[in-house]
Amino acid sequence: MSEDAVHDSAFLRACRREPVPYTPVWFMRQAGRSLPEYRKVREGIPMLESCTRPELVTEITLQPVRRHGVDAAIFFSDIVVPLKAIGVDLDIKPGIGPVVAEPFRTRADLARLRDLTPEDVPYVTEAVRLLTAELGGTPLIGFAGAPFTLASYLIEGGPSRSYERTKAMIYGDPQLWADLVERLARITSAFLKVQIEAGASAVQLFDSWAGALAPADYRRYVLPASASVFASVAEYGVPRIHFGVGTGELLGLLGEAGADVVGVDWRVPLDEAARRVGPGKALQGNLDPAVLFAPREAVRAKTDEVLAAARGLEGHVFNLGHGVMPATDPDALTHLVEYVHERTAR
Amino acid sequence: MSEDAVHDSAFLRACRREPVPYTPVWFMRQAGRSLPEYRKVREGIPMLESCTRPELVTEITLQPVRRHGVDAAIFFSDIVVPLKAIGVDLDIKPGIGPVVAEPFRTRADLARLRDLTPEDVPYVTEAVRLLTAELGGTPLIGFAGAPFTLASYLIEGGPSRSYERTKAMIYGDPQLWADLVERLARITSAFLKVQIEAGASAVQLFDSWAGALAPADYRRYVLPASASVFASVAEYGVPRIHFGVGTGELLGLLGEAGADVVGVDWRVPLDEAARRVGPGKALQGNLDPAVLFAPREAVRAKTDEVLAAARGLEGHVFNLGHGVMPATDPDALTHLVEYVHERTAR
Repeated sequence: MSEDAVHDSAFLRACRREPVPYTPVWFMRQAGRSLPEYRKVREGIPMLESCTRPELVTEITLQPVRRHGVDAAIFFSDIVVPLKAIGVDLDIKPGIGPVVAEPFRTRADLARLRDLTPEDVPYVTEAVRLLTAELGGTPLIGFAGAPFTLASYLIEGGPSRSYERTKAMIYGDPQLWADLVERLARITSAFLKVQIEAGASAVQLFDSWAGALAPADYRRYVLPASASVFASVAEYGVPRIHFGVGTGELLGLLGEAGADVVGVDWRVPLDEAARRVGPGKALQGNLDPAVLFAPREAVRAKTDEVLAAARGLEGHVFNLGHGVMPATDPDALTHLVEYVHERTAR
Repeated sequence: MSEDAVHDSAFLRACRREPVPYTPVWFMRQAGRSLPEYRKVREGIPMLESCTRPELVTEITLQPVRRHGVDAAIFFSDIVVPLKAIGVDLDIKPGIGPVVAEPFRTRADLARLRDLTPEDVPYVTEAVRLLTAELGGTPLIGFAGAPFTLASYLIEGGPSRSYERTKAMIYGDPQLWADLVERLARITSAFLKVQIEAGASAVQLFDSWAGALAPADYRRYVLPASASVFASVAEYGVPRIHFGVGTGELLGLLGEAGADVVGVDWRVPLDEAARRVGPGKALQGNLDPAVLFAPREAVRAKTDEVLAAARGLEGHVFNLGHGVMPATDPDALTHLVEYVHERTAR
């Protein structure tokens, strides 16, 4: 019964480009530091440790559903969790991000990337099961990092603004690069499958930093690995979302890689994004998360602009154009959900 | 005589879309930390202080001309120098960037932005004069920060990744925002005029962070102020270059603001950039600065791609798609200049 409700939810209907009673809404990083209840339950628990505690993951994932009434939950985890699970020595440092103890630089480093099995992440299976029981008719989105973005952390050793070591490998040793992203694609596929098999009813592949590449390079060096990830989960029939920030030039290719839904940041209006993506795909986005720091009327006006640009889309999932910023007022998010539902009620 | 040589230089000819003997090359941030001779002369001298010493500015500006044989020099300064000169309490912190002691937030803060006069920056006039004497036939590019980018530092209090306070002002108090960028436009215009009157033969307006805005917002909230800067220096007849990183969606508008040359980052191939900018403008760019960390053959291959995409342009100034990164091997830059000259010799 709740399976039917999930299947008929506004979120999954929009992903499948079917008619919806209202535009569904969720927010990237909705389960996170913008919520005082999140900061409270995370107190004293390091990020990666928190991802291995099923009850905590369940609580954190549910928090924004309870508070904001969003139309989908997104599994609380981190894109480096599967890498940690197969033994890569890394940590998430507060205020910095993922830091890799020994960055990947040579062919010998490939040996550090063995395949991921469900036994490596039992806490993920358990948390997804707990969650789908709790969520009732609200769909759960599973997620993973795309090979390019994961590779960039492994090679740079941490977050980067310019990806010079990653690009040095791409251009200087394209075969090593291809082998690296092929291994990461297998790990990413396995991580998504664990989530789908345990009950996730959609998945999002985050290629957060792919926007650092020009389209020809994305097509040559990144798309094949991401396409193999999408193809590997096609048999499950769950909607596949693909997102990266600053990917205006890549929107068509993000769809081509095998996404059913293409996420769009705030720089490209959704009607223009639809032209770039082409027919047969839904779009997700794209209110600038910084807009939430403006007064409420301004937020409404910018939301109206997004909804106006979305009018002719085949399917639209409302979201921000990037993750919720930690200092965001949670009430502004709750209000935004209500406002989008109200304005789009059919 | 050297004035004629400057006027007929490959760089100025390319900016004017006239035939050139070879494609001229310069690099954003060519005078900077990638050069050991730069690190040596800057030792122990804070950034903003170094900008006020004409002999030092002259030496630093000349270093990349001597070493790499680039086709233009760019005046060594910083976009916050004119703000410091009119009394805004700010500093450039190593490893961080400009930090403003009391960020701008209210209408009362406008009073802190008085007009700039040449007497506020005598060291700029002197350094430009010294430089044009030393440079012979090599043109000197003056520069300034565009109103949006300067405003973002003043409002955020320093560098930002998301510009939430800036956007909160833009959307929440558009009249205060308009008044702020109008004042900054006057300061920027005055700073460019000082450099042109002292001998600079081109100017570049850096709207480094304008790519954080969607096109409709850029047009409404940013373009008018930048356009007034370009219009204010039109009478001098020197080429006006306009650049911001991640501005693929804004290229047409960067030209529309009044630029003769539009700078392009590496995400948009130059032939596609030319379609967006339209006829009657030259383009500048756009090798990814991260490519310089790859082996030499790879750098050549990527350079060939840039030159191939530039083939049909009305005018092309070769540059990187963003500033030189500090860890760049200076020999790679020297080689790149030679390679572009060689490949484009007519």
